[in-house]
Amino acid sequence: MAAPLRLGLAGLGTVGIGVVQIVQKHAALIAARSGREVVISAVSARDRSKNRDADLSGFAWETDPVALARREDVDVFIEVMGGHEGAAKDATEAAIAAGKDVVTANKALLAHHGQELALAAEAKGRVIRFEAAVAGGIPVIKALTEGLAANSITRVMGVMNGTCNYILTRMQDAGLPYDHVFEEARQLGYLEADPNLDVGGIDAGHKLALLASIAFGTQVSFGAVELEGIGKILIDDIRHAADMDYRIKLLGVARMTGRGLEQRMTPCLVPAQSPLGQLQGGTNMVVLDGDSVGQIVLRGPGAGMGPTASAVMGDVVDLARGFRVPTFGVPATTLAAPVAAAVASAAPWYLRMTLVDKPGALAKIATALGEAGISIDRMRQYGHADAYAPVLIVTHKATRDDVNDALARFGATGVLVGEPVALRIEEV
Amino acid sequence: MAAPLRLGLAGLGTVGIGVVQIVQKHAALIAARSGREVVISAVSARDRSKNRDADLSGFAWETDPVALARREDVDVFIEVMGGHEGAAKDATEAAIAAGKDVVTANKALLAHHGQELALAAEAKGRVIRFEAAVAGGIPVIKALTEGLAANSITRVMGVMNGTCNYILTRMQDAGLPYDHVFEEARQLGYLEADPNLDVGGIDAGHKLALLASIAFGTQVSFGAVELEGIGKILIDDIRHAADMDYRIKLLGVARMTGRGLEQRMTPCLVPAQSPLGQLQGGTNMVVLDGDSVGQIVLRGPGAGMGPTASAVMGDVVDLARGFRVPTFGVPATTLAAPVAAAVASAAPWYLRMTLVDKPGALAKIATALGEAGISIDRMRQYGHADAYAPVLIVTHKATRDDVNDALARFGATGVLVGEPVALRIEEV
Repeated sequence: MAAPLRLGLAGLGTVGIGVVQIVQKHAALIAARSGREVVISAVSARDRSKNRDADLSGFAWETDPVALARREDVDVFIEVMGGHEGAAKDATEAAIAAGKDVVTANKALLAHHGQELALAAEAKGRVIRFEAAVAGGIPVIKALTEGLAANSITRVMGVMNGTCNYILTRMQDAGLPYDHVFEEARQLGYLEADPNLDVGGIDAGHKLALLASIAFGTQVSFGAVELEGIGKILIDDIRHAADMDYRIKLLGVARMTGRGLEQRMTPCLVPAQSPLGQLQGGTNMVVLDGDSVGQIVLRGPGAGMGPTASAVMGDVVDLARGFRVPTFGVPATTLAAPVAAAVASAAPWYLRMTLVDKPGALAKIATALGEAGISIDRMRQYGHADAYAPVLIVTHKATRDDVNDALARFGATGVLVGEPVALRIEEV
Repeated sequence: MAAPLRLGLAGLGTVGIGVVQIVQKHAALIAARSGREVVISAVSARDRSKNRDADLSGFAWETDPVALARREDVDVFIEVMGGHEGAAKDATEAAIAAGKDVVTANKALLAHHGQELALAAEAKGRVIRFEAAVAGGIPVIKALTEGLAANSITRVMGVMNGTCNYILTRMQDAGLPYDHVFEEARQLGYLEADPNLDVGGIDAGHKLALLASIAFGTQVSFGAVELEGIGKILIDDIRHAADMDYRIKLLGVARMTGRGLEQRMTPCLVPAQSPLGQLQGGTNMVVLDGDSVGQIVLRGPGAGMGPTASAVMGDVVDLARGFRVPTFGVPATTLAAPVAAAVASAAPWYLRMTLVDKPGALAKIATALGEAGISIDRMRQYGHADAYAPVLIVTHKATRDDVNDALARFGATGVLVGEPVALRIEEV
């Protein structure tokens, strides 16, 4: 049996402790499957005195994760601290410079610095593995880079932020407004310290950018992801969608089109009967389309101690077995600079707005749509309160640009009350 | 770049031609992802003159797959001929003896001879990879052996025969009887030459036995799989199940229990709203439960040229990258001889039977159930034709042995007309 693989674990929060627990509980299982022992040499965290749910007495302690990353007795540096600048980045760079492989759960770090880090690792003959960074316990990066490696991937799609899916399905099930459920989610501890990372779609956008890089062989370009959060979704929208047999999801879609790479993470309507439409609560789902395989759907827990630690340790077992898939599936030197599609592909849209209740108001909106080149599939005024008339429109296929044009024209009519909501209808 | 990886392809049916097409179409993509070229050196099939949908002119031709398996210019032997004895077995053994890695789509071969073949490969430092043998294009073996490698797997469950799921969902959707839909499936070419491989649960049982071996580190033991086909299912059963918000699926379940390994492939009732209950048509689904990750659900095409060839080539890319996971996830020398659980775990049961329409008939059945130690949750007579009374019973939890005991007692009452149907209700 080969020499033990020695881990240096930076970060002793939920995920870090989950890693310790797996290494301790399943030492024999992991050794049997890896062909060698996997041991933790040293750990680091900010506060040594904190009470933690694991026996750390057998591990060396480093206060500085950079020092941990450079230790001679560490083969693989595990970064589960989080944050895309500062200590996480410094320590990851130090580990790579010292010739270690890196396993990380840090989507933000890779979304922002993935290309430079992958190049640096590659120059040392090492890799960065990050299964835990995308869709928690679901082995989606492995499916894309290995299982489906003989496919040209045509689309990657998914619900990758459990908190947003919890909020949207809870709104639907309980008939509660966004603000109420948002507050519930906060109290349940489902939200990041900066909730906009969740409900603004940023966290899910990071994940989508990483999957797009792998799927299409392009450098990560998080900046090119069209991002829209779920904060504008009213319970009315969820009800209208349900009436039309749709569900509203914060949906990520990445496609390579003739016009370039399309990446979006936006609230969309999806058919209620589709696997995505049926996804409840905090569960994640990724849908992969390949030219040979057709469609593969992967579903599982997107966060939490066990699932995330499972993904980290799956990567560790790969490294213990000597498997080093390049960080983004192909050598980072060969990743193409992505050309972002100027306009995402066309789709039907759901438009919901409130108009002043005056004769001709609806006609002005219809005219504005026509001027923007958008034709109407269905349009209805659905009851009104006081002087306001809520209106729901489903369009035929239109691009985001056309819709933006129409929204600008709506504004100029003077009949709008408040902001209209425009949601893409994605035929999954 | 390393030297090309050279394939010998035995079998030029649908899957074989699919492999040729991928190798030819995606040569550059595969080379980029593998770090080396992947080429086909030689092929073999029974009939050279047959018209095939691929250009084979660049490949050497062998009439004998054993000769192909031994060729010096072959690194990986791909077996997509099928059959668990004869040419497929001989050629696979020859390839292993000659020190080649093997990629196969042949579930029957591995279900019957997996252990001896794995040992032989291992003795040569080689592996047998068989992602294509289980659930078609779904990378489930990779998920189990690699992605979830740090988990103790607690259950493997799934719908793994697309033809049976097609028949059952078509019966439900169209309200057509089994015989009619069976004939449709035959005309659509969905059935194996020996249809009992499909509808008798044998094919799916092979797949379950392979997954159980990987999940629980035991030698493949197909003989210990409790097998039951779908031939007895009436449209009435499907309707009763739907009335109770269930669906009938040919469901495979493997669990390691305190009493040993439980493996069954039998028609079961599953909740209509569960991912398994919602699975339509020929699609496959595998549900993996791990102690850290929780539940992962994988869904995709279970058969067909593209999906199966995709899985074969996924294994080839692994080998091109130099990744050799042991055939069943751990060295074959360490696989435990499985202890089959004498009795599968208890569950509620759905019992449907026809009784002679005489006073006291139902009481005799109820008494027989009580004598078998089974208590009744619901029981109803649901209309009758002539002198017959159809009866539906849902029991509280009972073991298969208790149910068999009850069925024997039913027979002794003299009030049964025809064979009763007993289906387990699986709370997925």
